[in-house]
Amino acid sequence: MEELVLKVISQKGGNNMNNLLVAQSGGPTVAINASLVGVLQGVRASSKVDNVYGAKNGIDGVLKENFIDLNEVLRNTEAMDTLCYTPSSALGTCRHKMGDWRKDEVPYKKIIDVFYKYNIKYFIYIGGNDSMDTVDKLSEYCKVNDHDFIIMGAPKTVDNDLNLTDHSPGFGSAAKYIATSISELERDIAAYDVPAVTIVEIMGRNAGWLTAAASLARVNGSAGADLIYLCEKAFDNARFIKDVKDKIAKKSSILVAVSEGVKDSQGNYVSDQISSGAVDNFGHKYIAGAARALEQLVRNEIGCKVRSIELNLMQRSAAHIASETDIIESCMLGQKAVNCALDGETGRMAAIKRLSDMPYRVEFISVPVDQVANHEKIVPMEWITPEGNDVTEELVAYMKPLIQGETNIKYENGIPKQIKLY
Amino acid sequence: MEELVLKVISQKGGNNMNNLLVAQSGGPTVAINASLVGVLQGVRASSKVDNVYGAKNGIDGVLKENFIDLNEVLRNTEAMDTLCYTPSSALGTCRHKMGDWRKDEVPYKKIIDVFYKYNIKYFIYIGGNDSMDTVDKLSEYCKVNDHDFIIMGAPKTVDNDLNLTDHSPGFGSAAKYIATSISELERDIAAYDVPAVTIVEIMGRNAGWLTAAASLARVNGSAGADLIYLCEKAFDNARFIKDVKDKIAKKSSILVAVSEGVKDSQGNYVSDQISSGAVDNFGHKYIAGAARALEQLVRNEIGCKVRSIELNLMQRSAAHIASETDIIESCMLGQKAVNCALDGETGRMAAIKRLSDMPYRVEFISVPVDQVANHEKIVPMEWITPEGNDVTEELVAYMKPLIQGETNIKYENGIPKQIKLY
Repeated sequence: MEELVLKVISQKGGNNMNNLLVAQSGGPTVAINASLVGVLQGVRASSKVDNVYGAKNGIDGVLKENFIDLNEVLRNTEAMDTLCYTPSSALGTCRHKMGDWRKDEVPYKKIIDVFYKYNIKYFIYIGGNDSMDTVDKLSEYCKVNDHDFIIMGAPKTVDNDLNLTDHSPGFGSAAKYIATSISELERDIAAYDVPAVTIVEIMGRNAGWLTAAASLARVNGSAGADLIYLCEKAFDNARFIKDVKDKIAKKSSILVAVSEGVKDSQGNYVSDQISSGAVDNFGHKYIAGAARALEQLVRNEIGCKVRSIELNLMQRSAAHIASETDIIESCMLGQKAVNCALDGETGRMAAIKRLSDMPYRVEFISVPVDQVANHEKIVPMEWITPEGNDVTEELVAYMKPLIQGETNIKYENGIPKQIKLY
Repeated sequence: MEELVLKVISQKGGNNMNNLLVAQSGGPTVAINASLVGVLQGVRASSKVDNVYGAKNGIDGVLKENFIDLNEVLRNTEAMDTLCYTPSSALGTCRHKMGDWRKDEVPYKKIIDVFYKYNIKYFIYIGGNDSMDTVDKLSEYCKVNDHDFIIMGAPKTVDNDLNLTDHSPGFGSAAKYIATSISELERDIAAYDVPAVTIVEIMGRNAGWLTAAASLARVNGSAGADLIYLCEKAFDNARFIKDVKDKIAKKSSILVAVSEGVKDSQGNYVSDQISSGAVDNFGHKYIAGAARALEQLVRNEIGCKVRSIELNLMQRSAAHIASETDIIESCMLGQKAVNCALDGETGRMAAIKRLSDMPYRVEFISVPVDQVANHEKIVPMEWITPEGNDVTEELVAYMKPLIQGETNIKYENGIPKQIKLY
């Protein structure tokens, strides 16, 4: 691994410099660093930007003036290439949701001071819903107070729940990992000829896109998950047990995919429902996920062999099986955000517009960030089967192009090569 | 996916045919099908064998005469190539430990009858400890009763706990998945700047080899897991909490790897110790793994952000990141088992002898199966640090060659291509 020394940025140049600042925020993904590389490529393709800085740990790093000189740490294409295939947020991340500037102007004033101090003309924020909220509020604050700064968003989220973009960077790679893992688990459980239920919990509190990826093995004629429950549809325990019984009657070993956020018709998380009474030897409450709760339910109600699996953080960090389509698009969105910024757009987010499925064609656009922030794009009900235990072919067709292609990831001593920026 | 129709084998040819039967047993791995391919290659390279059959679900399939004609279902090199990269046991598996033939001869007589009926001269059993026990008992039964059958074992286990072989097929690929996932998780957790403990549970009830693979990212200068607890050494809760506190004082976000089978000095599983009192809303006992139990312990004793992750079945089925070294060696061991069988060896297992680490060189040998069956090769104490919270450089050096190389896996619609034999 290349270790690059953190350089503390000193205030360079005069007042007529135009510098660009970029930061990453929210949950890490496999593709968020490709967007960072795209930002750098966009900057280098232009003569309008002098220096390009990265803020550490999102907006927190802006407030703390915790900057990295990206031209310094990413000097050559090899480093940029490695960064494209390095998972997680190389600049670090934060979960800082900015308050209303009408109520408390202090942090906004601080940011503006920092922008003036470092001659930052352009700020690109790569992130999800909360990050787009920051882009929205900050750009609005600048407009209202006549500060001539440009604030642009670049999308990122494994959850694929961002509004106004066909899909979000990070989703395709996570979906590819899930599709691949499910197809491998399918082979694993098929080796035994005893009745068994394997329940796989997949990320998604309110949006079931990632869970839907458990269907993708079907494009190769496999079953993928036999039953799929998305968090968009009310979950019913009795119905679930019936579904499982019906399936294991036909096929002894079955695979069930379930969103972490499945809830009953009252909106209660399934996990809470089943596990709320459990305490450990210290008398503390057990926090169980949905799959574990359902494992317990199957054990109690059916009594067959049952196992729960959480794809956990691996699904958002498995860069070794990133989707080439996802990485290329993420990079393009970073470039698009810069190009829009250089064209004077502010308070907007780079986004993807799908032109066609087959052949898969997209266009990179920009959309008003106030219609992205605080919205959540969930799976449409018509893409979930009426029984609520599977997804439709339309949903499979939507996802299929997003997992295509394998990246040119380099291995070093048998392990994927990575780069650290600090 | 290529679907191949199951052909029920009819009794072919006369009494002077020499057929070969192969079966797979025990927990599936990423490499066990490569050994099956090796068996087939060994057969095809010789003129001594007429037909080659696969028994479905291990010795159970032998008893039930549930056979597949392998020359039929694996006709071309493309199918064999795909099989090498398909995880799990393509012939199915079982967990059937044969009883003592001195006490109950019936199943042994049945097997012998089946061998005569199908003109099976050679039987190759690919599997772990229990499967080698079957090879041992069956070959002994044949010798004592003057049956001229050849019974050979080919090793397989992700646990790497087989005696008399330097390492076992399946281990290298699982270790590569673990090393890669740990290095990816390391990047993921490093993105946040709040104190956090992430505990990763890795397979191994009695042997900690796989857990030790959490150290492998170090060969590239990363930390890998910051603390590693193998099941070979008695686990002490207080000591663990102290280790964690010491580490998070220096580095806010830390990664801990722990064997599923860690036990205290009395031999009690850590998971039982902590979770035995927990019951769900139905009043049933909660079954928690070691990592989940330790997560609860950290939450109670330290109170910082803590998460547990189980690599679960993915670690033994992630064919998409198989080790090329592992796949090649697994194939060679299948061939070696056949070659030994054709040379008249019986009651033995094909094995690997390491000649040197750098350059990595091995020799394929055969060893007496009675010294493999019912033995367990655990991690030597001198390869665990005196503090019991890490592994030594010698252990890293032992594992490093086993994860080298990436396979030439083919993708179809963005997902690794697989083959089903029935």
